[in-house]
Amino acid sequence: MILVTARSGFTGALGWQPLRSKEVTRWSDGRSSSSLSWWEGASGDRRFAGAEERGITSKVLWKMGGMTSRVSGGPAMSRPQTPEPARPAQEDSPTGTGGEDTGDGIQHSHRMLSFSDALLSIIATVMILPVTHTEISPEQFDKSLQKLLATRIAVYLMTFLIVTVAWAAHTRLFQVVGKIDDTLALLNLACMMTITFLPFTFSLMVTFPEVPLGIFLFCMCVIAIGAVQIECSAHRALYRQHILGIVLRGPALCFAAAGFSLFFYPLSYLLMATVIFLPYVSKACSWCKGRLVGPQEPPAHSVEFFTFDLHEPLSKERVEAFSDGVYAIVATLLILDICEDNVPDSKDVKEKFHGSLVAALSVYGPHFLAYFGSFATVGLLWFAHHSLFLHIRKATQSMGLLNTLSLAFVGGLPLAYQQTSAFAQRPHDELESVRVSCAIIFFASIFQFAIWTTALLREEETLQPSARFGGQEHAFMFAKLALYPCASLLAFAATCFLSRFSTAIFHLTQIAVPFTFLLLRLLVRLALAVLRALRGLALPTPGAEDCTTRSPLLPSPC
Amino acid sequence: MILVTARSGFTGALGWQPLRSKEVTRWSDGRSSSSLSWWEGASGDRRFAGAEERGITSKVLWKMGGMTSRVSGGPAMSRPQTPEPARPAQEDSPTGTGGEDTGDGIQHSHRMLSFSDALLSIIATVMILPVTHTEISPEQFDKSLQKLLATRIAVYLMTFLIVTVAWAAHTRLFQVVGKIDDTLALLNLACMMTITFLPFTFSLMVTFPEVPLGIFLFCMCVIAIGAVQIECSAHRALYRQHILGIVLRGPALCFAAAGFSLFFYPLSYLLMATVIFLPYVSKACSWCKGRLVGPQEPPAHSVEFFTFDLHEPLSKERVEAFSDGVYAIVATLLILDICEDNVPDSKDVKEKFHGSLVAALSVYGPHFLAYFGSFATVGLLWFAHHSLFLHIRKATQSMGLLNTLSLAFVGGLPLAYQQTSAFAQRPHDELESVRVSCAIIFFASIFQFAIWTTALLREEETLQPSARFGGQEHAFMFAKLALYPCASLLAFAATCFLSRFSTAIFHLTQIAVPFTFLLLRLLVRLALAVLRALRGLALPTPGAEDCTTRSPLLPSPC
Repeated sequence: MILVTARSGFTGALGWQPLRSKEVTRWSDGRSSSSLSWWEGASGDRRFAGAEERGITSKVLWKMGGMTSRVSGGPAMSRPQTPEPARPAQEDSPTGTGGEDTGDGIQHSHRMLSFSDALLSIIATVMILPVTHTEISPEQFDKSLQKLLATRIAVYLMTFLIVTVAWAAHTRLFQVVGKIDDTLALLNLACMMTITFLPFTFSLMVTFPEVPLGIFLFCMCVIAIGAVQIECSAHRALYRQHILGIVLRGPALCFAAAGFSLFFYPLSYLLMATVIFLPYVSKACSWCKGRLVGPQEPPAHSVEFFTFDLHEPLSKERVEAFSDGVYAIVATLLILDICEDNVPDSKDVKEKFHGSLVAALSVYGPHFLAYFGSFATVGLLWFAHHSLFLHIRKATQSMGLLNTLSLAFVGGLPLAYQQTSAFAQRPHDELESVRVSCAIIFFASIFQFAIWTTALLREEETLQPSARFGGQEHAFMFAKLALYPCASLLAFAATCFLSRFSTAIFHLTQIAVPFTFLLLRLLVRLALAVLRALRGLALPTPGAEDCTTRSPLLPSPC
Repeated sequence: MILVTARSGFTGALGWQPLRSKEVTRWSDGRSSSSLSWWEGASGDRRFAGAEERGITSKVLWKMGGMTSRVSGGPAMSRPQTPEPARPAQEDSPTGTGGEDTGDGIQHSHRMLSFSDALLSIIATVMILPVTHTEISPEQFDKSLQKLLATRIAVYLMTFLIVTVAWAAHTRLFQVVGKIDDTLALLNLACMMTITFLPFTFSLMVTFPEVPLGIFLFCMCVIAIGAVQIECSAHRALYRQHILGIVLRGPALCFAAAGFSLFFYPLSYLLMATVIFLPYVSKACSWCKGRLVGPQEPPAHSVEFFTFDLHEPLSKERVEAFSDGVYAIVATLLILDICEDNVPDSKDVKEKFHGSLVAALSVYGPHFLAYFGSFATVGLLWFAHHSLFLHIRKATQSMGLLNTLSLAFVGGLPLAYQQTSAFAQRPHDELESVRVSCAIIFFASIFQFAIWTTALLREEETLQPSARFGGQEHAFMFAKLALYPCASLLAFAATCFLSRFSTAIFHLTQIAVPFTFLLLRLLVRLALAVLRALRGLALPTPGAEDCTTRSPLLPSPC
């Protein structure tokens, strides 16, 4: 059955948005149906959603079959699928017009979502600034300073988690809100502004735990965010009640928390912790239930129409955009301080350094060193993340959580490098800071590795078709993701034996790893060739001559 | 002629990248040709580039005709175009394989370019921080403080310009470097790190003008950036000599400047100014030449193969990504300070405010007010920018320059709001700060309006087809872009007459404008209806009854 698909929403007037598009499909037997296809971000794999119009998304998996792929030629669509009968059009949905919605300024806007991700990544990382600005000199590193630093780090981690939960809620909401008009864009800006206050109100709560004001302001923010989300969903989404049920959970709990803050604040904190950890707790509960009770049947069709729930995968594009924002901010964190504070004063240069600018700048040597190391490490971690997500088709909830954890530790890298540089002058204390730095690098990179492992466990669902069958590209990916964990573990172990040279070891690692990345392909090929040679030696067979030729690994791109 | 296009690079393994894709086109007469099609970012309009493989882009405009659009159904391709004969395959380009390049890890990566844009937008705006952190209290606003502030503002504007020039060079380079492999991605990170040092070295130059070190470091950065760009172009681009000629201009001039800095530094500054302003001067010269000499014939085919030059339009997607980065950073600039500095100390609250957290926070009232205003204004300017670029298909050089100017003034908004809030307590000085704020808002928004006007002057080239024929959407766009200029002009004028109430006027404007944006569509429709009614009254004709019905304006989406 030849299928001609007119991808009207795509190359249409409002531009090509990889988030949503509308297709008018003409079957060769004369039927015409309109569907809102849902593209998996930039992955190229399509999941078609059922007969929907005007920005209302349903998630009925309406598989169009392999025919479309023959026309478009995409290898990703070569899986055979049985076409299901077209579902009748939903109520308020005009039949296939084939053109974009007009007159109400409705558009697809992945740019708006990218902008939101940029804002949210800035807000998520805002509380690193007090951490990196904590004046730590090796001589004064006493208990109270340690406590202050620990408090600030805890505040950073909690606010990072809180803003990530808000970002995930935003992502889920806009996965069901199909199209965006002007009003929705403005409401989204209001939502963003409210989210930007969460870190500050959290800091207030931490500094003044018994005062109700902090709790009250935090809960007001959450309620305001919920109200805006309800307004957003009112515009565009189907099954409003189901959405409301989910969107209202957080604000309702916070309303109760605000009330309790006036006379019994520990309960307020408990309720707020529930709000923050609820998505993860809920997911863990359903996983346990699945293990105990056994796999459940998919829900009935009426519910299947709408699956806006906490267990749906995150949009891969938004995960990438949010991660890119965090990586960019953390990478440039230290240069902000260098540009602002480390330009020597002309008077100081004349008086203290007798006019020698070089001497004045060399005082700041550790700051520059810290910046180089921090940028190089964060940049290479981004590079590994980028390569990883090229292979990934869909980001599941567990992968999202691991990504969040990885990003949280990435945020600690500037502090790690600052400490290592600052403590380098004191041979006794540098050991501890070098070890802490190695630990941070290890955790930031091991969670990335865990994302890949998680993806491999559910290959058919999460990986790109071309990356599914092992081979050389898997070896490259493994090498890229394992490099930093191994390097940091080696450095940590080396400091146990050669504690006197811990700084030198650390700097050596910093220099060696980027070069290893550059030569990675060469090294992996060498390693594979050596493995093959060893295998050939171990198992001599008549076919052993074939081992010397290039083994039939699937040549898939990286 | 029926054309079946297999969009292999598209839904292919590496995902769908709206920047590049490879198409194998089978003409109905049996010819087969492979082309690298170049998508205009997210606009959906396609410009096909000539027979290229393996990441080498040429810009021969190989128009494929409207046939492709019939298959894909995109209305944007309905312009009739004559197909030109296929050009023979370039030297090292294998004929149509139809699959992605393999084994070398070559991929399309608009994510890498977005990440680069994020980094560059952070670096471009880094020197706002000293400006907003300048301690200005109304009592101490004397000459020396004014001079310091003016110097810092000048440094910010110059570094913004410098980084924008670097960003534009990066954009042009990656418009010809088609595909990106691991090595290129790592080289790009090195390029980014070098660019991050430009603001610091510029600050050094400004603080120590006669010392050669600042000039030397700046020139070293430019030379290093040039070296990395040459290395990037070596990998992937055709017509290397032509690229080298352009890429090497900046570093060569800077090399000369570094040499001169040792004995005659004014010449160094002249050479460096040439490097920074060269693109704009070159463009202005060619425009003047065009006016004097008359329109020139397009160059011969051999040069046409490669048009990596300073007059090609910028990639719209990169303009949007860079602008989004700047808007996001400026919008959240003040909350960074609030989160870090404006959490009251518990001791202070007990001693100075007798335990009243509300009193302690109200000291920071102006900071919160400044943040609200700043976020709201920047957010709404982003919203206008977003609506503007939905209509735009291609960003010309002049539009890019106007965008840069607009973004530079947007960066001044946090300072404007800070001053307005800080000076509000002193009725005599507030007038000046309110006027300065109105001026900054006016310039930030008028340059956006100028982008639209420039686009209208060359409609066929710059606007989306659907937005080309005037109508209601033009009226909406005009209203959106004119709102801030008019509001700020009105406020400025009002302060001339009612100077006593200047703060109140300013705050009123701040509140009124967001609401006006929300009601904009309604207001524009009302205005259009009034205009039609007036026209109907002025020219009574038998057809006047038709005026009351909806006029046949092209209902194109916003």
